[in-house]
Amino acid sequence: MNPILETLGRRLRLGVIGGGPGSFIGPVHRTAARLDDRFEIVAGVLSSNPERSRQAAKGLGIAPERAYADWHLLLAVERARDDGVDAVAVMTPNASHHAICAMALEQGCDVICDKPLATSLADALDLVRRVRESGRVFCLTHNYTAYPMVRQARDMVRAGVIGEVRQIQLSYVQGHNATLVEAEAAGRGWRFDPAACGPSLILGDIGTHAHHLGAFVSGQELLEVLAEVWATVPGRAADDAATVLMRWSGGARGAMWVTNAAAGAEHGLSFRIFGATGGLEWRQEQPNELLHRRSSGFPELLTRRLHGALTPSAERAARIEIGHPEGYQEAFANLYKDAAEAIAARIAGTPCDPLALDFPTVEDGARGLAMIEACVASAKTGRWTSARLEL
Amino acid sequence: MNPILETLGRRLRLGVIGGGPGSFIGPVHRTAARLDDRFEIVAGVLSSNPERSRQAAKGLGIAPERAYADWHLLLAVERARDDGVDAVAVMTPNASHHAICAMALEQGCDVICDKPLATSLADALDLVRRVRESGRVFCLTHNYTAYPMVRQARDMVRAGVIGEVRQIQLSYVQGHNATLVEAEAAGRGWRFDPAACGPSLILGDIGTHAHHLGAFVSGQELLEVLAEVWATVPGRAADDAATVLMRWSGGARGAMWVTNAAAGAEHGLSFRIFGATGGLEWRQEQPNELLHRRSSGFPELLTRRLHGALTPSAERAARIEIGHPEGYQEAFANLYKDAAEAIAARIAGTPCDPLALDFPTVEDGARGLAMIEACVASAKTGRWTSARLEL
Amino acid sequence: MNPILETLGRRLRLGVIGGGPGSFIGPVHRTAARLDDRFEIVAGVLSSNPERSRQAAKGLGIAPERAYADWHLLLAVERARDDGVDAVAVMTPNASHHAICAMALEQGCDVICDKPLATSLADALDLVRRVRESGRVFCLTHNYTAYPMVRQARDMVRAGVIGEVRQIQLSYVQGHNATLVEAEAAGRGWRFDPAACGPSLILGDIGTHAHHLGAFVSGQELLEVLAEVWATVPGRAADDAATVLMRWSGGARGAMWVTNAAAGAEHGLSFRIFGATGGLEWRQEQPNELLHRRSSGFPELLTRRLHGALTPSAERAARIEIGHPEGYQEAFANLYKDAAEAIAARIAGTPCDPLALDFPTVEDGARGLAMIEACVASAKTGRWTSARLEL
Amino acid sequence: MNPILETLGRRLRLGVIGGGPGSFIGPVHRTAARLDDRFEIVAGVLSSNPERSRQAAKGLGIAPERAYADWHLLLAVERARDDGVDAVAVMTPNASHHAICAMALEQGCDVICDKPLATSLADALDLVRRVRESGRVFCLTHNYTAYPMVRQARDMVRAGVIGEVRQIQLSYVQGHNATLVEAEAAGRGWRFDPAACGPSLILGDIGTHAHHLGAFVSGQELLEVLAEVWATVPGRAADDAATVLMRWSGGARGAMWVTNAAAGAEHGLSFRIFGATGGLEWRQEQPNELLHRRSSGFPELLTRRLHGALTPSAERAARIEIGHPEGYQEAFANLYKDAAEAIAARIAGTPCDPLALDFPTVEDGARGLAMIEACVASAKTGRWTSARLEL
Repeated sequence: MNPILETLGRRLRLGVIGGGPGSFIGPVHRTAARLDDRFEIVAGVLSSNPERSRQAAKGLGIAPERAYADWHLLLAVERARDDGVDAVAVMTPNASHHAICAMALEQGCDVICDKPLATSLADALDLVRRVRESGRVFCLTHNYTAYPMVRQARDMVRAGVIGEVRQIQLSYVQGHNATLVEAEAAGRGWRFDPAACGPSLILGDIGTHAHHLGAFVSGQELLEVLAEVWATVPGRAADDAATVLMRWSGGARGAMWVTNAAAGAEHGLSFRIFGATGGLEWRQEQPNELLHRRSSGFPELLTRRLHGALTPSAERAARIEIGHPEGYQEAFANLYKDAAEAIAARIAGTPCDPLALDFPTVEDGARGLAMIEACVASAKTGRWTSARLEL
Repeated sequence: MNPILETLGRRLRLGVIGGGPGSFIGPVHRTAARLDDRFEIVAGVLSSNPERSRQAAKGLGIAPERAYADWHLLLAVERARDDGVDAVAVMTPNASHHAICAMALEQGCDVICDKPLATSLADALDLVRRVRESGRVFCLTHNYTAYPMVRQARDMVRAGVIGEVRQIQLSYVQGHNATLVEAEAAGRGWRFDPAACGPSLILGDIGTHAHHLGAFVSGQELLEVLAEVWATVPGRAADDAATVLMRWSGGARGAMWVTNAAAGAEHGLSFRIFGATGGLEWRQEQPNELLHRRSSGFPELLTRRLHGALTPSAERAARIEIGHPEGYQEAFANLYKDAAEAIAARIAGTPCDPLALDFPTVEDGARGLAMIEACVASAKTGRWTSARLEL
Repeated sequence: MNPILETLGRRLRLGVIGGGPGSFIGPVHRTAARLDDRFEIVAGVLSSNPERSRQAAKGLGIAPERAYADWHLLLAVERARDDGVDAVAVMTPNASHHAICAMALEQGCDVICDKPLATSLADALDLVRRVRESGRVFCLTHNYTAYPMVRQARDMVRAGVIGEVRQIQLSYVQGHNATLVEAEAAGRGWRFDPAACGPSLILGDIGTHAHHLGAFVSGQELLEVLAEVWATVPGRAADDAATVLMRWSGGARGAMWVTNAAAGAEHGLSFRIFGATGGLEWRQEQPNELLHRRSSGFPELLTRRLHGALTPSAERAARIEIGHPEGYQEAFANLYKDAAEAIAARIAGTPCDPLALDFPTVEDGARGLAMIEACVASAKTGRWTSARLEL
Repeated sequence: MNPILETLGRRLRLGVIGGGPGSFIGPVHRTAARLDDRFEIVAGVLSSNPERSRQAAKGLGIAPERAYADWHLLLAVERARDDGVDAVAVMTPNASHHAICAMALEQGCDVICDKPLATSLADALDLVRRVRESGRVFCLTHNYTAYPMVRQARDMVRAGVIGEVRQIQLSYVQGHNATLVEAEAAGRGWRFDPAACGPSLILGDIGTHAHHLGAFVSGQELLEVLAEVWATVPGRAADDAATVLMRWSGGARGAMWVTNAAAGAEHGLSFRIFGATGGLEWRQEQPNELLHRRSSGFPELLTRRLHGALTPSAERAARIEIGHPEGYQEAFANLYKDAAEAIAARIAGTPCDPLALDFPTVEDGARGLAMIEACVASAKTGRWTSARLEL
């Protein structure tokens, strides 16, 4: 049942870097790692404060000697152990992703890294090169494309079900930064610090998710952008909203709206993609439904109910039958499940099920940085700006 | 009960110009005129073909001698009658609006005119001048702002319920032109003919509706646009899609997406407006609900259920109690109902209930043309372009 | 265009009985009569108070000499006029329906009557006999079955699209009587008076609508009921809620829940009908959608978007294209439109379009009373009780 | 962070009984046990076939010597081990629950048991007695009441937010048995076998869930039922649908509709509960929303967005912030998380956080059996039948 046990005779050994007390994403990663029982979390750096890191590790059941004071140490010591970590999961502030991932790859680790990949396109491209040279598995946690119905949408587009894609509308509309929260909360401070979060808070934090979703489902790459990137809240130094006109490689055009300052909004990630003969619409707030509009017929509401009716890739991502709702955590875990198979195959030297390779890559991460930098430039000039990336 | 009967002792006499056999909007106007029993349709030009016009008029119960062969004749002859029309309703192809409205005003008629007001900003401004000089009532049928919940949203914004408006997202997404329909259907040919429909099919046809909706609800005027306007369907000479970045007079920014080539889409007019403390969301496909998002509280779903809970302007626009759904036709009729009161007050020389004056004006029409021309120019240059209009 | 003008060379002459100042349903009937321009309201009794009746009639544009002091007078005097009413619309308290309809039929009028038909099954059956003997048209305003998507559902069931119907769930859940409103409001007093409203307030007022909806769509007749009928609000003499187990003539079973005391509920009329191979679901709060569930396929969302995709009967009931929402008033008007055709055909002695004959009949009214009396009896005995009616 | 590690210095040791290859519920239980890292699955009986059981256990990473051939053996051998299981999770066919749970309690194990508790009220009451005598923790997996918004609803009712509860409507409408699946599928055979599933397939399988949901949220106990229980599919020996009139201990009345033969339906568990001043509505297909209707105000849509706005019990059950959807698996895991705390507290002899004690109990299981037996009896007699249970 558990293909990792079958391939390796053991679970994968995972080290976690970041995600300590107060982190939103830390428990999400760890639960995702645990959900399908492919990983054992055996080592960690959970805080930049050594004592706090040790306490937190203990609270997770990590052995004291593998609760490290910093990530350099973790990577160095674990490498020397016979039972050292196979992979690390990186969930630190954006600015440290590059250094940690680079050293982890050097040490021979496979890497699961939170998004955005880096804080500059140059760093991102450097990681692309390093991953390619290392031969290691690299999974970037653009988790939303791991929802069954998003994979279904991608497969339907690929199969030509809606014809040539012509219009792509993306949005990610949250409300938690609608007031000057940075004036109060010490906790999430790094996101408002350009040095830690990169050239654009909003594009790095959620713009990359929306962009990746659009590229994943449409199968097109972003060519050019014309962007507004601004702060809606008076007194805010960082940005909190962006609207972007986009031109895509297959001829589609459209817009993206991302903000976390829409007062009272909740999650609000969605796509609407229209082709020559139909359209597909999906909202993360109701992730188990995919609306398929058709030129010649009434709309269909695709769900996970019917066995055999979804594509193999979507079926693989679905866990539970007959309408029981699945959520964010299950989608996130799909990335860990898939990455585990790729990692185990690499270790064992066996071929990996191609269906397991749907997880976002380091190249996807570089495309995200290209998008961010193009938008920031366009917002300054008011001109169409290339976001094209040859990889 | 019927304030027109009270004011004038009779119903208003209406002449209809356009809207004959095969027209979509003709029956909508006539039903709207009839719904509240303020107008009697006594004269008409229903087709450019005199015989067809006469037949159609007969089918509507118009007396044969008042079924005219062309609109010049209608205006001239009716003016000479003691019981001549008080007002005309104009629902001809866009390019003729200016000439018909201009002459109708000259003849002393009040005017109800379909949108867009004209096919150039110059013509639109000329009509603004003429309406102002004539002292006549001019109602432009941007019918969507006559929905109770849209008026409610406008009133809530005005009252500061969501704070200063910061983000405005508009969309109008239809699918009936997703294929090359102009290659088949003789019937709707004029819409694909730039000479008849103006500088942009899509912006004239539905862009003006979405723009007016945004301006109406937000209380802000459009300052600048950055637009893509294009044809998504290969072989199409006219445009069928536009995405527009917008900057508004109160500091709000956002985007508008309008298309009638989203295969399988239906109606799809909607707004999402966010201010400092909340947001408002409305979709024409479910017009009886208004979602009010709040920073500090859960979202509320406003409906027409509670007496006294809506604003007076929204209550006025609502007809039926306790959740019975109202639709497009009722909203359209609200414009006729309100315009009738304004017309009757003008004729009688009595003051008009200010709540009746919510209907779109000739100035709104001019703003629409300014938006269209700015978008078309911006789409050519790829630059921010002013849509500002001092009226 | 207007088939009545074509058939008769004039509009039908309608007298209205009831629906005066303060009435909810009065304006609904009159607007429905006007919407399609088949009727002219030429006479009326709008209040049991002669002076108020005259004033109200004047406010509707009815000539003073045809504003009658009572309905006996209206029927007698109009019969004597050359241009007397063709038909009467009856919207008085339930208890007077029988007497008014009986006399109107005697005088040769066609009748449009609000529901419930009567306040006892005996009276209802008497009206069945009278209608049959008179040869007059009788239309009962169970308006909800005149929605396009309800007719579509009926036609799909008839065509076997969901197979043999097995389960029928009906509900009509309102909230306006959730408090002891009868202690305050003089206005709606008659509904709480058993002498005026019949054996069950809730079943007469909305139970008959839900029952008719179920029978109409399923094509089955109600055989047996097991009912709870009670008052949820302390101190209430009338009932305000009922839940009923139902067995139908085609073997289907299910339940009906009707109440107007569900605090905060709005309209809430809905059906869910399941057959051997699929199901159909509809809610009046979103009347333009019909959900079609399928055993072997994803659910389809039927709307009025696609020309030619709906059944002829549904197309006939739909007025506006491409997703513009229609509501309660349009559905109500469909009954007047259809009844007008039947009346004109009777007068002219011409055949009537069978599609126009979809309106509810006097027999449907009798079935409603049989349901009410069976439920009230069952609620007393706690036993299954026959509601079968041979007509 | 992990309170079990804190209390015991180790995770709880769990044995799983049932849920082997082909089982729907097996992976759900095991994932639930793993999700919050409170349990280690160390022993199991995964099939009645010893060899298949061993293979499956290996696939789960269970040591070969703790992969048992049958549950008697598991309980006996584990008891003898120093590191024997603390608790067992029982997910076998219904008819074996009683024997397994009884012996597990005897052996000193805490028990997590799938629903329904047993196949007769007598067996259920026997288990109530045994649990009470044993002092062991017993958690019945009525998982739907572990959704945050369901706990929120319960807490709001308790706090009087909607006033005295007056009407309760429950439904659970699935479609997977809409055809004669038992004629084909060997796999799920036991559910169609009365000896294995108990007196009513549909009431045992999903009726108990809906009933528990109603009792949990309303805080009332079921007093009397009047039921139809039948097979809608021709040729079916078991039942597949039930509609039940219900009277509750606090004076509320209403109905329950449960079926798995509604062709094309998906999951469809829902409640609608109305009190004197408002109502609450929830659907499992969209579990992250709770609609709160209010007599004097517009409906509110409660979600998990706002920190501090939900009750402590709901907050405890929610894992992820700002609108990321949670699903079935997370709710299921809440039961394991809570039960783990109760078990650890029992072992450690420390007090348990009262908020952890929200999981369904053996008494709830007995109430379910009382409901089933009352419905089956009522369906035979057509009479109101007591479902009251003094515990």
